Amino acid sequence: MKHLSKEEFDDLQKFYRINLINSCTGYKSANLLGSISKEGVENVSVFSSITHLGSNPAMLGYILRPTTVPRDTFKNIKETGLFTVNHIVKDLISEAHHTSAKYPEEISEFDKTNLEQEYKDGCKAPFVKGSPVQLICKYQNEYNIKENGTILVVASIEDIYFNEELVSDSGFLQLDKGGVVTINGCDGYALPSLLDRFEYQRPKK
Amino acid sequence: MKHLSKEEFDDLQKFYRINLINSCTGYKSANLLGSISKEGVENVSVFSSITHLGSNPAMLGYILRPTTVPRDTFKNIKETGLFTVNHIVKDLISEAHHTSAKYPEEISEFDKTNLEQEYKDGCKAPFVKGSPVQLICKYQNEYNIKENGTILVVASIEDIYFNEELVSDSGFLQLDKGGVVTINGCDGYALPSLLDRFEYQRPKK
Repeated sequence: MKHLSKEEFDDLQKFYRINLINSCTGYKSANLLGSISKEGVENVSVFSSITHLGSNPAMLGYILRPTTVPRDTFKNIKETGLFTVNHIVKDLISEAHHTSAKYPEEISEFDKTNLEQEYKDGCKAPFVKGSPVQLICKYQNEYNIKENGTILVVASIEDIYFNEELVSDSGFLQLDKGGVVTINGCDGYALPSLLDRFEYQRPKK
Repeated sequence: MKHLSKEEFDDLQKFYRINLINSCTGYKSANLLGSISKEGVENVSVFSSITHLGSNPAMLGYILRPTTVPRDTFKNIKETGLFTVNHIVKDLISEAHHTSAKYPEEISEFDKTNLEQEYKDGCKAPFVKGSPVQLICKYQNEYNIKENGTILVVASIEDIYFNEELVSDSGFLQLDKGGVVTINGCDGYALPSLLDRFEYQRPKK
């Protein structure tokens, strides 16, 4: 095994370090967040930090980094109070990844990619058409992580839309049935296949 | 698309709801956290909420849920200040998942599973043998998420160990080369294959 210690991280070339540290925590969720400004400008942006926070109430969080792109999403969320979460599928990885380009605030990424917006059920924020799992989320709070200046954005899950082929009798959404991808590092997209599911585990005697 | 709104979540059977909400945010990281109590009792426990927080300084976080198992891990981390993160591979998913069983504090999951501990470089906390990416992390802080009583635990990455076959010239750890898995929902384990990587994206004209 190759070993690198904290002191050695500082000697790494900048992008080597970014790639290494971004890929060393494991696979990440792959989502497109849809939002809209108070002036009506749409935004769609790739996120790999959406994290389950709890089932009851249904909540999720994401990490906002001080130096990265998705500031427009955050600004829109603060203005309108809501956003959509749309799982990224295999055929859209290239288009999805392009939303990480830094477009000016007045440009909609829907106009610069082949991603298509859709609107439904009176939700102001746009969804991404073709995504097999879509959520409407409401902003709840934010926590400043003082150790590095990032922000944990906390939101409630208000609505869930899913392709019915994905769901099992027990409510499990089998994501590989929808071609949902996962992110490896900053820019790697991988397609998982389900290996197995396990029962609730009890201690062995 | 099937649609369920927040009001309908409450009418779902308890485990249906847990499965649905846990699988609706996308794939999760699959890690075993190794720790040790001040009395020297080892603990190893599966976590699906390890999240990248930043590259410089190298930091990660995980979510501690009030009602779930990994309290022993947290107690140990508070006592000793450190823990290891070990990526779960395909051949160990069944053993890894069994660490979610609620064993008494004085029982080491290493004694109840085929997971093997290893020690190196003076790190007090145990690693999981055979894991192709392993980290030593130091406790930094915790943030109470008042909306649902969870805690975001923030830690620095002090050391990285990785199988050299995984790393590219640019520092990217290609996790599928090591058979690293991802978690779908509460109890689904999936094996990803890399589809593609993308360059840094610049706006189109």
